[in-house]
Amino acid sequence: MSLPRSVVWENNQLWLLDQTLLPHETKMLHCDSVATVFAAIQALKVRGAPAIGIAAAYGMVIDWQGPVALSALQERAQYLVSARPTAVNLAWAVNRLVAVATANESAGEVPLALLRAEAETIHNEDKLACRAIGDHGAPLLEGRSNLLTHCNAGSLAVSEYGTALAPIYRAHEQGRKLHVFVDETRPLLQGARLTSYELASAGVPYTLITDNMAAHVMSQGKVDAVIVGCDRVARNGDVANKIGTLNLAILCQHFAIPFYVACPISTIDVDTATGAEIAIESRNPDEVRSFAGALASRQDAPVFNPAFDVTPAALVSALITEVGVITNPDEDEIVGLFA
Amino acid sequence: MSLPRSVVWENNQLWLLDQTLLPHETKMLHCDSVATVFAAIQALKVRGAPAIGIAAAYGMVIDWQGPVALSALQERAQYLVSARPTAVNLAWAVNRLVAVATANESAGEVPLALLRAEAETIHNEDKLACRAIGDHGAPLLEGRSNLLTHCNAGSLAVSEYGTALAPIYRAHEQGRKLHVFVDETRPLLQGARLTSYELASAGVPYTLITDNMAAHVMSQGKVDAVIVGCDRVARNGDVANKIGTLNLAILCQHFAIPFYVACPISTIDVDTATGAEIAIESRNPDEVRSFAGALASRQDAPVFNPAFDVTPAALVSALITEVGVITNPDEDEIVGLFA
Repeated sequence: MSLPRSVVWENNQLWLLDQTLLPHETKMLHCDSVATVFAAIQALKVRGAPAIGIAAAYGMVIDWQGPVALSALQERAQYLVSARPTAVNLAWAVNRLVAVATANESAGEVPLALLRAEAETIHNEDKLACRAIGDHGAPLLEGRSNLLTHCNAGSLAVSEYGTALAPIYRAHEQGRKLHVFVDETRPLLQGARLTSYELASAGVPYTLITDNMAAHVMSQGKVDAVIVGCDRVARNGDVANKIGTLNLAILCQHFAIPFYVACPISTIDVDTATGAEIAIESRNPDEVRSFAGALASRQDAPVFNPAFDVTPAALVSALITEVGVITNPDEDEIVGLFA
Repeated sequence: MSLPRSVVWENNQLWLLDQTLLPHETKMLHCDSVATVFAAIQALKVRGAPAIGIAAAYGMVIDWQGPVALSALQERAQYLVSARPTAVNLAWAVNRLVAVATANESAGEVPLALLRAEAETIHNEDKLACRAIGDHGAPLLEGRSNLLTHCNAGSLAVSEYGTALAPIYRAHEQGRKLHVFVDETRPLLQGARLTSYELASAGVPYTLITDNMAAHVMSQGKVDAVIVGCDRVARNGDVANKIGTLNLAILCQHFAIPFYVACPISTIDVDTATGAEIAIESRNPDEVRSFAGALASRQDAPVFNPAFDVTPAALVSALITEVGVITNPDEDEIVGLFA
């Protein structure tokens, strides 16, 4: 099974796979400054909650020559977080480096090697977490070979197996026959561009559909489970994920189909009580008016373009994390994870 | 209020507004042969159930010089129906001309003027039906100023007020404040291209969204009713309409929002017992792979591209027809219409 690599760190140099060019062109973007990393995160060249966190962690250590001033590091953390305010992994990753720096500073400075090691640890932990998500999730898919996923929460979104796709990849490696319906995921078409590219690389059979076809394929008995990733989980189990996720969760309830959310526990934000507290980023209206330069509507069409929606915990059959499966998640179960 | 005209018949000449060029270019296509009409129907240059029927009716009378042979007319009817087999209005319209011809033939021939008059009658009946749908539907929207619609069932789809948009236009003419969320309607983007163009022309405030945003805007209390057109209604009230309609109907049930289907009674097919009997046309996979001409996925991505889905009658709050509103439609009510 061959999976693309979205974040590459070699010889203290950072390369990001430019995902805005997929699936037509495979180009690694060399990031030699924090501004390049910031721009890559903001323009979705690197996307997916964990991959953003990893890229930001490396962005924190890029371009220093010697010991790093704690104040400069804190400033850089704020700068990077502002690239995508909704992405909790971004803040989580850069804050881990700030915490390490704070604990180890001497005269307001911290050794660069220590920060690099922490960024590499974040990256390695993510690989292990994805593999564990796959191991915990694959058994849920037994007897459920017809799947549907939204957006891209695969290897492109993280470092190896992905989150939503990890159980699928593990089941595929175990020789099970699977088929995945891939929502194209408007407006940025991450499903059409990225998930179909990944599944084709991995040799997993798939069929691309437009987002509004999910109800139809479900009504025909062609979907046994839906599995998605997520950007943030609130303390009560509400899930913020790519726009269109709530839609699928409601359809799953209607058709009595399990709705699984795969996420590393770093995505769980116990400081956010419910989904209602999660700020939804509104993106550029032109993303809805057009795609890849092809304009569909009038150039002046009024547009609403929320990047995320919030799915109530009651619609989530289970969270699949690296520490295990949380069935029917609620505040008690989630707080218990961190107790 | 200024509405575009999709089918123009003047001096026994047929012009169709080429809807594949909207909203960027407004170009009337002169149809001087039945092959041109066939191609326009198949390529969706003219689309929307009633407009297809009207165009086909004129296609039946185009390009004859004198009396028409009944056998040639019957052959032409079969040919035109094959352009879009799911479109019941198409068959209904051409069969009306065949019936008139059959009843009035003499030595296997029928006067051309008689056929032209019948085609014009179909066109005029449609205008009156749309206005009546608007009159019956507008009261349903009282106290429901925030609407959502899918695809295009407006003036571009018919001859004047449209079907789904007719109640909205009538309410707008009555001075009521309305706002319409417009689903972009993948894959062919009729919402982005056509409905937003129409509503802008008519001066009705609207906001364009991607199809997968409907659940989110509903969850925020921004939608008081959904109103769509339809391609065919079965005897039990099941509704075949543009792919994505079932999705909306399920969301409406979840959020307790009324789900209205506007249709001329010519769309009701009492010979079809339930929606399960309706053949769903599968269209070109490239429609899903691309967006407005821009390729999103791999060129070889496996695709499923059903043009329609079927919404069970149980999810339909009411059918809005030119003869009145049928609340909670079922077989008894529908058969009663034709008794």
